[in-house]
Amino acid sequence: MPKPVLREATDALVRMTRTTICGTDLHILKGDLPAVAAGRILGHEGIGVIEEVGTGVSHFHKDDRVLISCITACGKCEYCRRGMPSHCGQGGWILGNTIDGTQAEFVRIPFADTSLYPIPKDADEDAMVMLSDILPTGYECGVLNGAVKPGDTVAIIGAGPVGLSALLTTQFFAPANLIVIDLDDNRLAVAKKFGATAVINSTDGKTVEKVMAMTSGKGVDVAIEAVGMAATFGLCQEIIGAGGHIANIGVHGASVMLHLEKLWSQNITITTRLVDAVTTPLLLKTVMAGRLQPKQLITHHFTLTDIIKAYDTFANAGRQHALKVILTNE
Amino acid sequence: MPKPVLREATDALVRMTRTTICGTDLHILKGDLPAVAAGRILGHEGIGVIEEVGTGVSHFHKDDRVLISCITACGKCEYCRRGMPSHCGQGGWILGNTIDGTQAEFVRIPFADTSLYPIPKDADEDAMVMLSDILPTGYECGVLNGAVKPGDTVAIIGAGPVGLSALLTTQFFAPANLIVIDLDDNRLAVAKKFGATAVINSTDGKTVEKVMAMTSGKGVDVAIEAVGMAATFGLCQEIIGAGGHIANIGVHGASVMLHLEKLWSQNITITTRLVDAVTTPLLLKTVMAGRLQPKQLITHHFTLTDIIKAYDTFANAGRQHALKVILTNE
Amino acid sequence: MPKPVLREATDALVRMTRTTICGTDLHILKGDLPAVAAGRILGHEGIGVIEEVGTGVSHFHKDDRVLISCITACGKCEYCRRGMPSHCGQGGWILGNTIDGTQAEFVRIPFADTSLYPIPKDADEDAMVMLSDILPTGYECGVLNGAVKPGDTVAIIGAGPVGLSALLTTQFFAPANLIVIDLDDNRLAVAKKFGATAVINSTDGKTVEKVMAMTSGKGVDVAIEAVGMAATFGLCQEIIGAGGHIANIGVHGASVMLHLEKLWSQNITITTRLVDAVTTPLLLKTVMAGRLQPKQLITHHFTLTDIIKAYDTFANAGRQHALKVILTNE
Amino acid sequence: MPKPVLREATDALVRMTRTTICGTDLHILKGDLPAVAAGRILGHEGIGVIEEVGTGVSHFHKDDRVLISCITACGKCEYCRRGMPSHCGQGGWILGNTIDGTQAEFVRIPFADTSLYPIPKDADEDAMVMLSDILPTGYECGVLNGAVKPGDTVAIIGAGPVGLSALLTTQFFAPANLIVIDLDDNRLAVAKKFGATAVINSTDGKTVEKVMAMTSGKGVDVAIEAVGMAATFGLCQEIIGAGGHIANIGVHGASVMLHLEKLWSQNITITTRLVDAVTTPLLLKTVMAGRLQPKQLITHHFTLTDIIKAYDTFANAGRQHALKVILTNE
Repeated sequence: MPKPVLREATDALVRMTRTTICGTDLHILKGDLPAVAAGRILGHEGIGVIEEVGTGVSHFHKDDRVLISCITACGKCEYCRRGMPSHCGQGGWILGNTIDGTQAEFVRIPFADTSLYPIPKDADEDAMVMLSDILPTGYECGVLNGAVKPGDTVAIIGAGPVGLSALLTTQFFAPANLIVIDLDDNRLAVAKKFGATAVINSTDGKTVEKVMAMTSGKGVDVAIEAVGMAATFGLCQEIIGAGGHIANIGVHGASVMLHLEKLWSQNITITTRLVDAVTTPLLLKTVMAGRLQPKQLITHHFTLTDIIKAYDTFANAGRQHALKVILTNE
Repeated sequence: MPKPVLREATDALVRMTRTTICGTDLHILKGDLPAVAAGRILGHEGIGVIEEVGTGVSHFHKDDRVLISCITACGKCEYCRRGMPSHCGQGGWILGNTIDGTQAEFVRIPFADTSLYPIPKDADEDAMVMLSDILPTGYECGVLNGAVKPGDTVAIIGAGPVGLSALLTTQFFAPANLIVIDLDDNRLAVAKKFGATAVINSTDGKTVEKVMAMTSGKGVDVAIEAVGMAATFGLCQEIIGAGGHIANIGVHGASVMLHLEKLWSQNITITTRLVDAVTTPLLLKTVMAGRLQPKQLITHHFTLTDIIKAYDTFANAGRQHALKVILTNE
Repeated sequence: MPKPVLREATDALVRMTRTTICGTDLHILKGDLPAVAAGRILGHEGIGVIEEVGTGVSHFHKDDRVLISCITACGKCEYCRRGMPSHCGQGGWILGNTIDGTQAEFVRIPFADTSLYPIPKDADEDAMVMLSDILPTGYECGVLNGAVKPGDTVAIIGAGPVGLSALLTTQFFAPANLIVIDLDDNRLAVAKKFGATAVINSTDGKTVEKVMAMTSGKGVDVAIEAVGMAATFGLCQEIIGAGGHIANIGVHGASVMLHLEKLWSQNITITTRLVDAVTTPLLLKTVMAGRLQPKQLITHHFTLTDIIKAYDTFANAGRQHALKVILTNE
Repeated sequence: MPKPVLREATDALVRMTRTTICGTDLHILKGDLPAVAAGRILGHEGIGVIEEVGTGVSHFHKDDRVLISCITACGKCEYCRRGMPSHCGQGGWILGNTIDGTQAEFVRIPFADTSLYPIPKDADEDAMVMLSDILPTGYECGVLNGAVKPGDTVAIIGAGPVGLSALLTTQFFAPANLIVIDLDDNRLAVAKKFGATAVINSTDGKTVEKVMAMTSGKGVDVAIEAVGMAATFGLCQEIIGAGGHIANIGVHGASVMLHLEKLWSQNITITTRLVDAVTTPLLLKTVMAGRLQPKQLITHHFTLTDIIKAYDTFANAGRQHALKVILTNE
C-alpha cells in the first residue's frame, strides 16, 4: 500500500504501532456494509506516533504518541457542538469505512486536533487501544444511555467484547446486581471474572423466568442490548421493570417488534446510539487511575504482517476463546 | 347508586361538583378493557367538596374543596417514593377502573392525603378539572419525557385533548417550532389557536416530506405521539432527527415495528409513561399565574343528569367539534 | 487605527457593521481592570461581514454576515470540550481585553470557526448584537444556573441590561412569579413591560419582608444576582427558600459574607459563571422564532464615529434611561 | 425513663436493639443547640423491633425489625413530595431534638410508614445502624451534591465519620483521585485504608500548594467540606478548579467569607444540605450487595447501660481512635 499523504491543513499522518479488529470489520468483509468500497483499508482503532501534521493542527506535533478515536470530529458543526460527533457532517465513523483505516503502516487522520488524544507517558499501550472504540461504546451506548445508578439491577445481554466493555464500565456506578446473559459458557465465565454477580446461559429458553426470580418479579432497572438481534432486543422488553431503561448497543440489520401494547404504561426509556467517543478523556483518566483495566479484554497478539491469522482467530472467537486481538507494527 | 362509605382510615368521601369524560371511558364502554367490572361507575377526573374523612387523613377536612387526581398514591411504597405512583402497589389508576369513579354524586378516594389537592380560593373550577388527568398526561408523558428545550422543533401527532394538552404545556419550554399533525382540519385550526406554529393534515400521505422540508432535512428534535396507533408511531420514527426524542403518550392495543435497522445509530430516545400526576402542584401554580389556560380545552357543559347526552357528544367529538366536556353536579 | 491583519490560519478578519458597549467597558475605562493594556480597542460584542479568512477556517467565507461571540473558543482544549470555553486556554474573554476588540472598523477574530455564528438572512441586525454577550449571560449565568422550572417563583436583583436579559430568558421556563428588585423606578417600569409579575424598589430597606409576604414566608425558588455587590448578594441569601438556587451573574470586586450558620441546613445551591456563550445557537433559534425579542433592550443608536457620545449616554444610563446602545458602522 | 406511648395513628413504638452517638449529640450536650430541651433523650440513629403500631400504620407490624431514619417524613407535605423531608413541616430532624430520641429502651417514631425501613433478614445489624444518618449524610450532602463523576479528582476535607462516609460512597462513581485532608495522622491512615488515593496532613499550612501540585495547577473537580469551620470552607475555595463543585456537609456556627472577587468567573457550584435520608433504600441495596461495607466505620461497642462510657470514648475520638460506637440493648 502506498503511504498516505496529508490532504487538508487539519490532517495528521500517524504511523500505527498497535491496532485491533472490530466485529464491524467482519461485517464489512462479509459484504454486510456494501457502502464500503472494495480495496478500502479497514480498521478504526489503534495507537501510533505522529509522522506529520498539517498547518492547521495546533495540539499535536511530530513524534507525539496518540490514541486514534474511532469517531472523527470536525469540532465545529452543529452535531459536534451538541456532543454528538458520531453525526458530524464531515466526520463521524469514516475511518476504515469511507476513508482508509488503521490496519496499515500509516493512516491519515482528518481533523486531528479533535480526533486524536495524547497518550500519557506511563500508559500501557495495549490498554490504550481499547479506548479507541470498544470501551467508549460500552460506556456511552450502554452504561450512560442506560442511566445506571448505584443499587440498580442491570442485565447485559451479550458477553462479547462490547457487552464485556459495558460490564466493566457499568461498575463505575456501583450497581447492586449485574446479570450477564449469553449462549456461550466460556464467555459467561469471563463475565463472572469481570464482575458479573450472576450469569445466565440463555440456551434453555428460561431466561425471563430466571431474571424474574432474581428480581422478585419486578424485572431489571437497566437492560443493555449488546448483540443486535430481534430475539435479544425482545428479551430486553420482557425483563425490563417499570420505570426501567433499555439501552441498545447492538447493530441491527432488521426491524424488531416493539410491544407497546404492554410497554405504553410501563414508563420505559429505550435508547440507541452510535458511539460518539466523547468520553475518551474520562475513560483515559479512569484507566490511568487503575479503576478500569482494559487489558483484560485482550486475548491474542499478532504482528501486523500476520493480519490474516488475526482475522481468522477473531472470526472464530467462540472456538478460539478470543475477545480482542492486538496487531502490533514494530 | 348508594352513597359510598369510608373503608379505610386513609379514605375520604368527596361530593363531586364537576367531572368530565376521558377517551379511556369510551374504550371501557366499548369493552376494550375487559378487566373493568360491569356496573363499575366510570370517571377518574373531577373536583368536589370533602364530605367526610377517615381518622388517618390529616391534610384535608370536611368542606374542603379538592381536586381529585386520576392517580391514587399510597405515598409509601417503592414506586410512590420513586415519583412513579402510576405503579403504586395499592393505587395507580384505580378510580373508575378497579373501584368506583367520579361520574357520580359521591366518590370514595383512598389515600386521600396523597391523592387529592386543595383548590385555591379564587381558582376557576372548570379549569381545575383539566388538572386531574389530561394536563399532567400531556405534560409528563409528552413534554417532560420528550425533554423539550428552548429552540427545539417539536412535532405533536394527534390534536385530540391529550395532544392539545401537550401543545399547551410544551410552550413552557419555548420551542422554536411547534408542528401539529392530525387528520381533522377543525382540530388543526384549534391547534393553531393554541400555539402551533405549523399544522399538517396528514390525509395526503406527504407528512414526512413536509416535515423534512420544514427542518432542512434534519427531522424534529421531539416527536410526541398522542394517538396510539402503529401508523402514528411509525410516523414519529420517520420524522425524528438524530439525537431526538420520541415521547409516546398514546394507549396502544398492538405491537408496532421499531426500525432499529435505521435507528440503532441515530442516538434516539423513546419513552413511554402512564401519567403519574406528580406535576399537578406545579401545573396548578402555572394555572393560578395565568401561564396556562386550561379552559380553552372545554367545549361543552352538561349536568350530571344529562350524562348520556354528554357521552354521546364526546363519542362524536369530530362531528360535534368537541374537546373536553364538563359535567356539573350542583 | 491601522486595519488588523490575520495572524493565524484559524483567524478571520471581520468588518464591523454594528457593535455596542458593555458595562465591563466602563469598568476598564475607570481602571478597574488594570490588566487591560492602554490603547487597547475595547468591545467584545457585535456583528459584521467577513473580509478575509485564514487557510484553517472552513465554515466561513468572505462576505458572510456573522455574529461575533464575546467568548473566543479554540474548540479543542479540555475546557472547550467540557462546554466551558470561558476558560479556554487560548481563548475565553479576550476580545477588547487581551487583544483588540470590536469597537472599530475591523476586528481580527481568532478561532473563527468556533467563535463566530452565521446570521440568518432575514434576521434583524440590531437584535443579533444582543446575542454576542448580554443574552447568553443572562440566560446561562442566571436562568440555566438558577435551574428555573415551570411554576417557580424567581427574584431578579438588578434591572440593568443583564438583569433584564435574565428576565426575558427566564420566561422560557414559565415561572409563576417573576419579582424584579432595583433602586430605579424607571428600570422597574421597564421590567414590568418585559414580563415581571411584581417589582420592588428596594430603597426603603423592606425588600426581605415584601418578598416573604409574597411567598407565604417561604422565600423564592431562584434568586438571580445581577448587580455584583455585597448588599445584593446578601439580599439573595435572605430571600432564598429552602432548596432554592442563588445564581450569581454580577462581577464582584470584593469578598462577601456567606451565612453558612443559617444556610448549611437549607439545601441551597449557589452558582457563579463567566458566560460561555455556548447557548448562542439556541438563543438564535428562539429569536428567529419570535419567542425572544432582544430589540426591546436597545434604547439608543449612534454611528461609530459618535462613540464618545455613545459612551457618555451609556455611562449615565440612569439619567438617560439607557439600556443598550447600538453603534453602527455603515 | 417511662416507656413512651403512641400519640397519633401514624406512630410506631420501637424497642431499640442498637443505636449510636452522633457528633451532633456532643454539640447538644455542650449547649450549642439551646433549642433542645433539658432532659430530652438524645439519639436519632439506630435499629430496633416494632413493639406496637398505630391504626394508620400499614407497612409495618409488631415484631418487624426496622431501621430508623434520622429524618422523620410525613410523606405528604410540599417538601416531602419534593424529596426534601429534611424540611418536612411536621418532621425533619426531630428525633433526639424536639422529641425524645433513640438512646433509650423504646422510642416513639411519628409517621412510621415513611420514616422507617424494613431490615432484610440476612443483614448485619451493626452495618444497618450506619444507614440511619451518617452514610446518607456523606452520600447526599457530599457525593450527590458534589456531582462526583467517573474520572474526577475529589478532595474531602475532614476524615471524621462523616468525611469517611463521603469517602466510602464517593467510590460509587469511580473518581480517578481521592484526596483526603485532615490534621490527624491516624484518621488519614484510616482514610488510606478506606480508599483515599492520597492524604494530606494540613498541619503545615501547605495544603493548597500540595493539591495544586497533584492537579497540574488546575485544582480539584469536587471539594467536600466535612468539618464545618471557616478555615476548611476557605480551603475548599482555594483548591477548587474552574467548573468545580464545593459540597458543604459541615455544620457551621458562623458566617464565612466567600471570595466572589475570584470565584464569580470560575463557574463554581456551592451546595448545602441537611440530609434528607431519601437514599436510604438505595444505600441498603449497595450494602446488601457488598458494594459498601459500613462496618468499617465502627470502632467500639458498648451496652446501652454503659452509655456514659460510650459518650466518653466518642467525645475523645482522637485519643481513642474512635469513629462510630455501637450501643446495644439486648
